[in-house]
Amino acid sequence: MNTILLNDQFIDREQSSVNIEDRGYQFGDGVYEVIRIYSGKMFTGKEHITRLFESAEKIQLTLPFTEDELTENLYKLVEKNKLDTGIIYLQVTRGVSPRQHQFPLDGKAVFTAYTKEVARPEAQMNEGVTAIVADDVRWLRCDIKSLNLLGNLLAKQEAFSQGSFEAILHRDGTVTEGSSSNVFIIKNNTLYTHPATNLILNGITRREILRLCPGIGLEVKEESFTLDELYEADEVFVASTTAEIMPVIKVGAKAVGSSKPGEWSKKLQETFKASIQEQCGELVRSEV
Amino acid sequence: MNTILLNDQFIDREQSSVNIEDRGYQFGDGVYEVIRIYSGKMFTGKEHITRLFESAEKIQLTLPFTEDELTENLYKLVEKNKLDTGIIYLQVTRGVSPRQHQFPLDGKAVFTAYTKEVARPEAQMNEGVTAIVADDVRWLRCDIKSLNLLGNLLAKQEAFSQGSFEAILHRDGTVTEGSSSNVFIIKNNTLYTHPATNLILNGITRREILRLCPGIGLEVKEESFTLDELYEADEVFVASTTAEIMPVIKVGAKAVGSSKPGEWSKKLQETFKASIQEQCGELVRSEV
Repeated sequence: MNTILLNDQFIDREQSSVNIEDRGYQFGDGVYEVIRIYSGKMFTGKEHITRLFESAEKIQLTLPFTEDELTENLYKLVEKNKLDTGIIYLQVTRGVSPRQHQFPLDGKAVFTAYTKEVARPEAQMNEGVTAIVADDVRWLRCDIKSLNLLGNLLAKQEAFSQGSFEAILHRDGTVTEGSSSNVFIIKNNTLYTHPATNLILNGITRREILRLCPGIGLEVKEESFTLDELYEADEVFVASTTAEIMPVIKVGAKAVGSSKPGEWSKKLQETFKASIQEQCGELVRSEV
Repeated sequence: MNTILLNDQFIDREQSSVNIEDRGYQFGDGVYEVIRIYSGKMFTGKEHITRLFESAEKIQLTLPFTEDELTENLYKLVEKNKLDTGIIYLQVTRGVSPRQHQFPLDGKAVFTAYTKEVARPEAQMNEGVTAIVADDVRWLRCDIKSLNLLGNLLAKQEAFSQGSFEAILHRDGTVTEGSSSNVFIIKNNTLYTHPATNLILNGITRREILRLCPGIGLEVKEESFTLDELYEADEVFVASTTAEIMPVIKVGAKAVGSSKPGEWSKKLQETFKASIQEQCGELVRSEV
């Protein structure tokens, strides 16, 4: 698992290095994606790659390749590293230039991608996890999947330090998303999640869930909800590329529903798994 | 000018490199400072170094050296690079570890510092510069001098694309600070600047200005002001480590005062220069 993709070159991980004046290192001036690999194939790869281009455009960063060229290289990377179940992490920065806030005139983007084995978190998906709530202090362009993640990190660390899986963020009592996930509640057979505004990242897993709901008869409302509504929900789950659909059975000190993953959450997990297998083939690897 | 400081080692710039899994590169998980060097000496060096430690503490990052050890190494760096007039850029990240949001248990901070020749911008300080206004979309912990600077970059780029020196940021009409400076207005012989809350970085140059005002008989109010008050001010200036006290003679399409640096601004520039010379000795280098 030691080959990485640097721009359009495959090199040994050990030979890679970043310049100290890479704008990614000094400013977090770049965007990224994490793509799930199941059975050696990208799941919703096209959606992730399209979003990378959208994020780049939002920060006026021109990528030095097409979506098709990138897709082809990412598949080569997966093959070279013989990855079955895991992720590709990929990021692109505005490149190297003497430090100044305004964009360099002769900037050349620096793209990096590598793979990592990551099993499906099946035990946690079956049993559910706990979450805390935290103030959402992030910037007002959370729709951009940027490298400026300090607000997310501080919230996630707070969750971990309390033995929880995730921090559910809120602005003045309105739930936005998790520190590295989208947040969903189910109340009276209806699923609620924050609309895809500038206040959240429109997750690819989120979109997949919304696409799958009609097929299982679950009504969807893309409407924000409050902390009180979160505490009173029948079911709560968070969703992300690596965590898939992760039931939350306790928020802070408050049990959710019956303190077990709810029926709708389990149905969604099943149909989500079916969607993975439809795109990527049979899942043979076992859980963590 | 090719020696850099990496942790506590002096190495050739060409031999430095950053790991792709440095949390600075993937998350902007770090803090930084820019220290002015005049006549080979640090100006307000102690204040910058103390603030670096404060920023680090705010993100729960433990620095692997004391303030005194860092000061000594920074002076060695200036000497090795024979710097007369310029800056030291220094940053510290939470180091290298497999990518995950929560902090690594065995994290080891990565510190980098280098010097650069930067002349005093005397022509601009004499003639004044123009500014635009832009929405402040940054996070709610602007008091931390962190590497998460994308919001600042986008605003500065907008200013530069319009031929302006700086973007003056506001939240719902209340001026906070510039994209890389603090903002000050003078009205009826009183200086106003946003109080040092979570919404601005408490600039070292800002603090020096507030310290110097009584000596020249200028009243100070650390109170926020609106865009309307900005447009109606007698004088406007921005201040930063590299730009010192920079008069703003036009904001957007609106001329400030008489479209020339105002009398109070000029007096502050003089007393600021005297303060530099008191700390660092005679300024012999000429302008850009």
